[in-house]
Amino acid sequence: MNLTELRPLAEKLFDDIRALTFDGTGVTRESYGPGESATADYLRAFAAGHGLASEADRAANIVFRQPDAPVDAVAWTGSHIDSVPQGGNFDGLAGVAAGLLCLVDRQRHGGAAALPLETIAFRGEESAWFGKAYMGSGALLGKLGPSDLALKQRNTGLPLSHYMAEAGADVAAIAAQQPLVDLGRVRAYLELHIEQGPVMVARHLPLAVVSGIRGNVRHNRIVCRGDAQHSGVVPRWLRHDAMFAVADLIMRIDEHWRVLLERGTDLVVTTGIVGTDPAEHSISRIPGLVAFSLEARSKSQDTLEAFYQLVRAECTAISRERGVAFDFDRRLLSDPATMDPAVCAALARACAEQGTVFDTLPSGAGHDASLFANAGVPSGMLFVRNQNGSHNPDEAMDLDDFMLGVQALGSALARIGGGHG
Amino acid sequence: MNLTELRPLAEKLFDDIRALTFDGTGVTRESYGPGESATADYLRAFAAGHGLASEADRAANIVFRQPDAPVDAVAWTGSHIDSVPQGGNFDGLAGVAAGLLCLVDRQRHGGAAALPLETIAFRGEESAWFGKAYMGSGALLGKLGPSDLALKQRNTGLPLSHYMAEAGADVAAIAAQQPLVDLGRVRAYLELHIEQGPVMVARHLPLAVVSGIRGNVRHNRIVCRGDAQHSGVVPRWLRHDAMFAVADLIMRIDEHWRVLLERGTDLVVTTGIVGTDPAEHSISRIPGLVAFSLEARSKSQDTLEAFYQLVRAECTAISRERGVAFDFDRRLLSDPATMDPAVCAALARACAEQGTVFDTLPSGAGHDASLFANAGVPSGMLFVRNQNGSHNPDEAMDLDDFMLGVQALGSALARIGGGHG
Repeated sequence: MNLTELRPLAEKLFDDIRALTFDGTGVTRESYGPGESATADYLRAFAAGHGLASEADRAANIVFRQPDAPVDAVAWTGSHIDSVPQGGNFDGLAGVAAGLLCLVDRQRHGGAAALPLETIAFRGEESAWFGKAYMGSGALLGKLGPSDLALKQRNTGLPLSHYMAEAGADVAAIAAQQPLVDLGRVRAYLELHIEQGPVMVARHLPLAVVSGIRGNVRHNRIVCRGDAQHSGVVPRWLRHDAMFAVADLIMRIDEHWRVLLERGTDLVVTTGIVGTDPAEHSISRIPGLVAFSLEARSKSQDTLEAFYQLVRAECTAISRERGVAFDFDRRLLSDPATMDPAVCAALARACAEQGTVFDTLPSGAGHDASLFANAGVPSGMLFVRNQNGSHNPDEAMDLDDFMLGVQALGSALARIGGGHG
Repeated sequence: MNLTELRPLAEKLFDDIRALTFDGTGVTRESYGPGESATADYLRAFAAGHGLASEADRAANIVFRQPDAPVDAVAWTGSHIDSVPQGGNFDGLAGVAAGLLCLVDRQRHGGAAALPLETIAFRGEESAWFGKAYMGSGALLGKLGPSDLALKQRNTGLPLSHYMAEAGADVAAIAAQQPLVDLGRVRAYLELHIEQGPVMVARHLPLAVVSGIRGNVRHNRIVCRGDAQHSGVVPRWLRHDAMFAVADLIMRIDEHWRVLLERGTDLVVTTGIVGTDPAEHSISRIPGLVAFSLEARSKSQDTLEAFYQLVRAECTAISRERGVAFDFDRRLLSDPATMDPAVCAALARACAEQGTVFDTLPSGAGHDASLFANAGVPSGMLFVRNQNGSHNPDEAMDLDDFMLGVQALGSALARIGGGHG
């Protein structure tokens, strides 16, 4: 790959699209809305300017390829082009830009590749707009249904079906949950994405191969019920303090988590929403009710299940010890996605051969890649170092790191899927 | 004392006043409002019917005495006649009724007593109506100021001064913060009150001598600041989870508390209000901010101070270990009140001589007695067993327990303050 040629193209592409979708604070590319469509139009013009073909698929995602390339067996790469409101420029766009640059390089210099490459710019990956993620890739796979199509846009209240139809998608086929693509011809799906966490910056890793995409087990609302009493008159041995009980649970969770990490388990645990009951709480009242959310994420289904049972066992123990009760709402489970070992090996080999420091990390956030992996397409992801997290205007990916990622992605794509598909 | 005579009087008095102030759910005796005044009127008629004199003091509290009793050196007993909205019948009223029955018995049977007895029915003890407690006793002691008099009634929005004036209080003198009583002639203050906690029921104690009234140290709002990040992408070692930090603090507090109790320290600790920030919290976000209240109560000033410093030290340790920060609002301190040893001894002796099982307990809630104790009047309190706490319609004091309390109160009052005042 000729990185010297590609670097200025990358720089201009990121700058132009930032300017095109700048909202005064960050970038705003509404799913199936103006910012996303402006980005799609810019990319199609960019591709045409470099001799590449593009077309919208039946879910209104944009597919880029070399003109006249065979289509019966291909490798896919890509990511999404929408953003959250006042978001950052790189979440999603980096992966689409990387795929386009790989196509530009092939178009200019040819080179042997096992499979023709198609780069996909997905629409509607962010849940910020309709309360639902992976709409573009989900529609393509027949996984979006009528209830999803009825979801309302956060600002206008108009349904997703309205916006999808406006963007040119085949809403009737989507509502019928038909797969809109022949996955049989897609031999691999590779996605480059910025890291959304702080690990790679902390560990000085420009690139990372994603080992798997974490699934999660969740309760939106667990209620701990104790006994609301006057704070001054009830001694410790007669208290049923719901807040002390929940604090006890969180500390037991923290300790189990610490021990499991020492054994190499992949796990993160969060109680994102916790609160005493505003209808009855007061400074001089023992909390009688605390509601809280619980989320555990792991790339291992077994870990999720085992940890969940551990939490339930601790709740039972605390109920007995502190005279409280825990009421659980419906348990929600989202499956982890396993990345394909051969794809991961190709990405790792590419990083190693070009001399880039890297490691293998799990992805804590979800990605379009998890849908393809769970649909049976051998999939893999490459993370690029990024500061300040994502979903905010302060995302900061160094262009040098990005170009290392383009190089590794290009090398891996050139190798993948040869021979037997 | 002739308990056989007094019991039916007590029964009728409680029943009549309950009926007079029943609100459909519990009793409602608004501070300086209709329910409280109706109770005062009933009690004055009751007293007159038994040959007793009564008059309103300059703060509109009602003082009962035997006609023609000397007034230069007296013992006081009493409690309050207001209630919280939908409250119970015994919180306050029991102490006034007990004092009146002692006067009835003396009027009927005479008997040697060291000091003449005056029974006070205080108004405005409950903070539920104006957000301020001990208004009647505070006004009497010159401790109610103009800003207190401007406090608004919770339902009508009219100021306390309006209601006090309507009840006949000398609002100008109260605003000038003049003491409205010569405390020099009051040689002791004894108050009978129902227990508001569950200890006496749990320990099968019909009566208890109050060792002291707990003071407290409070923060209305402590803010723990961490780092709000995506719950899926930040591993444990890079998290600054404000909720885990606060849970850690609560569990350290719980452990210190447990150890201090084993050493015999008087202490209760409550975090009545705890919550993640509704403006930014979500199930999939690490809490970046948790706000909470903290209250410690003890009858020992030294314990309050030492425990407070321990909490601050733990906050410092947790800040370092978890990369969070604790911001404290203004520290509020309310002094404990010490009960007079001679008064306590007289109450204990009375219980012992009549063969009633009792123990010595701290009072966690505040009482009018704490104002007299801190104003230098030798004070003491007698608790009567009561089920289901107070400030609710389910208060349940057994009349047998109450009569044991009247007997002990009468015996103690007969003995107290003799000789040198």
